[in-house]
Amino acid sequence: MRIAFLAIGNELLQGKITDANGPWLTKFLRPLNSQLVLMLQVGDSFPEIHAALNYLYQNADLVICSGGLGPTPDDVTKEALGDFFGRGKPRPSSAARAVAQKNYDRFERLLPEGHGYGFLPDGFVPLDNPGGMAPGLWYSEGKRHLLAAPGVPKEFRDLLRSHLPQHLRTNGDQVSELLIFRTKGLPEEKIFGEICPGLWKQLEAYGSVSSLPHAFSVDVGVAVNGTKAEVEKARTEVRQLIYSSALQPHIWHEGPESLEELIILEASAKGVSVALAESCTGGLVASRLTNVPGSSAVLLGGVVAYDNAVKERVLGVDSELLQRHGAVSEPVAQAMAEGARVKLGASIAVSTTGIAGPGGGTPQKPVGTVWVGSSSNKETRGQMYQFKGDREALKFRFSQVALFSLLDLVRASRSQNP
Amino acid sequence: MRIAFLAIGNELLQGKITDANGPWLTKFLRPLNSQLVLMLQVGDSFPEIHAALNYLYQNADLVICSGGLGPTPDDVTKEALGDFFGRGKPRPSSAARAVAQKNYDRFERLLPEGHGYGFLPDGFVPLDNPGGMAPGLWYSEGKRHLLAAPGVPKEFRDLLRSHLPQHLRTNGDQVSELLIFRTKGLPEEKIFGEICPGLWKQLEAYGSVSSLPHAFSVDVGVAVNGTKAEVEKARTEVRQLIYSSALQPHIWHEGPESLEELIILEASAKGVSVALAESCTGGLVASRLTNVPGSSAVLLGGVVAYDNAVKERVLGVDSELLQRHGAVSEPVAQAMAEGARVKLGASIAVSTTGIAGPGGGTPQKPVGTVWVGSSSNKETRGQMYQFKGDREALKFRFSQVALFSLLDLVRASRSQNP
Repeated sequence: MRIAFLAIGNELLQGKITDANGPWLTKFLRPLNSQLVLMLQVGDSFPEIHAALNYLYQNADLVICSGGLGPTPDDVTKEALGDFFGRGKPRPSSAARAVAQKNYDRFERLLPEGHGYGFLPDGFVPLDNPGGMAPGLWYSEGKRHLLAAPGVPKEFRDLLRSHLPQHLRTNGDQVSELLIFRTKGLPEEKIFGEICPGLWKQLEAYGSVSSLPHAFSVDVGVAVNGTKAEVEKARTEVRQLIYSSALQPHIWHEGPESLEELIILEASAKGVSVALAESCTGGLVASRLTNVPGSSAVLLGGVVAYDNAVKERVLGVDSELLQRHGAVSEPVAQAMAEGARVKLGASIAVSTTGIAGPGGGTPQKPVGTVWVGSSSNKETRGQMYQFKGDREALKFRFSQVALFSLLDLVRASRSQNP
Repeated sequence: MRIAFLAIGNELLQGKITDANGPWLTKFLRPLNSQLVLMLQVGDSFPEIHAALNYLYQNADLVICSGGLGPTPDDVTKEALGDFFGRGKPRPSSAARAVAQKNYDRFERLLPEGHGYGFLPDGFVPLDNPGGMAPGLWYSEGKRHLLAAPGVPKEFRDLLRSHLPQHLRTNGDQVSELLIFRTKGLPEEKIFGEICPGLWKQLEAYGSVSSLPHAFSVDVGVAVNGTKAEVEKARTEVRQLIYSSALQPHIWHEGPESLEELIILEASAKGVSVALAESCTGGLVASRLTNVPGSSAVLLGGVVAYDNAVKERVLGVDSELLQRHGAVSEPVAQAMAEGARVKLGASIAVSTTGIAGPGGGTPQKPVGTVWVGSSSNKETRGQMYQFKGDREALKFRFSQVALFSLLDLVRASRSQNP
């Protein structure tokens, strides 16, 4: 089944909100052996929704749409869908009213008489919305299928989880898998241009090949299809190709886990505890780590030492060190990491001190300079990087190299488990 | 000029990456008095790009596209565009080679002979890419215009900033403005259903009305068009309507600034310094504040006190308090905020302690519970909230109410300036 996604909402095009449902859907579909063929965003407008659906059904069998099901007058999705499929205006529907009633009961709220949630165009099926009030919609007509859900991400997700899997035809015994090999420290061009010039062509024998640059890292992907046995065979051969290539020493992980998930997983398995000292990243390293469920078993905490006085008072960085070398320097990065490790009583710690801009750069230490400190009970080190980008991009790149240092520290640590 | 955005890349549909260029573009266009009519994402495929351009040019005059201009074999944008406009395959172009040379020189790298960056379909104009290597593209044919830029966000942004404004026809003396009134603590339904039932209709007399729910807050927007004088008159009348309505006490800001920008702006103007103590938000509050340029003038720093031992050691929270009330409690939230304020030497401080899940909830303190502490030299208080959502959504909601508490603290503070 070819699936397209349609996000409806003026605010998406006005820059007031960013669609989070399409990106989530792409990830949600993967274990269901499905993939989006198109993602489209249009305004809350009859003719635009009409033209969009015309285009989408030329390329897809199922359109999943989000947004415009709410109670305010700019919510026109239900009307536009009824119109597109020639099923007329929404009319009172006891099925829709019953579903809305169930949603309202769940939140112990009163559904007013004659509320729009109780209206549906003919032939549409209301869907229970476990996370909110507005019912979702299902419609099916020949080869054209439609699932509409509210745009609020939590409601969209809950509704899709409840209702989508049953509508996806399973494709016999075929499975598909995305093999991901994650490298660091090499630009994309260098990998396929200099280091492994023939690799791309070799990998293409096994499936669709992709290369995805991140901050300080490139993912090489091979999407493999076939029976379970065929996919297993392909995986073995692809791994052999990759690990015997010159790419091998640059690979830090194989699989879909994020850098922060991997750190929590490996540190947790070893019983290693972590502390952080952040200046230029301003809490981003801690926030990325604490997005991972179970991070509380690993991360004791961190100090956001934005002001130099906090570096001294809380982390115990020597004021003379700060004066002699400046805050953005190897000795201060080291002292911050060591201070965090000792004060918070952790096995290991990393620190960041740098210049995220837009101001604060000098010819010697331009915007984009960062020192990352790392400290264990064996040694304390510092490493400098320079990046380009705006403030938020730099903060992210700084946090990325700090997390790579942390992963190295975790991997160099002995297991603390009894 | 009607503008559409097309993001090209298999990885966007495979869930490996999320498009950041479309959302950025929606914001970039606003001060240029322009707005996207459509945003579309398709894979790196000739027929799909062809079908997409057909659809987009039925609805737009200018298509801005991103992605697929790089050096790897899955980058087919240039070929697909040449094909769509009937201008054939890319051929060696001295203009393209010169632009690529300039990009390479800027990064002190060597452009190999015969590199694909020196190839262009007939009639295409290469564009300088100040942030990267691959030249952008401009093409114009009757009423159809095209600007293509690399998908890497920094390169996309730099290229658009350099090349787009000159191509947008100015529309005489017409201006457009989005008036935004930001409320907090009320659900969307309640605003237009109960509190101000007639307001939406009244506002529609002035332009397109929208309502956008955020975490703990709803933005009411009115998009106004006309001459400068007309827009000014509309603004005055819309403000009068809003501020004489029952919505007035719930409005915390008028304008596009984010909550964190507003805090930095107002604290900075008053000379008020800020400290943070975060448990369940794990650094997110600090990270959101430090995204704002100039935040270093306001934020001294913070403590991510994930583990109870860190709450005691670094923030000085009494261990008996933790044992008696538990970490997620009003007294601990207060002690954390006060500890951060005093230890870091700040004028004011806020704290968070709660349960972001998925584990850790109890019947008395379910997942989604958070206590926010706030402390000044006048008083220290605590406030509880309960939300629903997954871990990252809850972290964001928790950070949002903490920032609202911080804004209240800033507004209640006396100016510290001499």
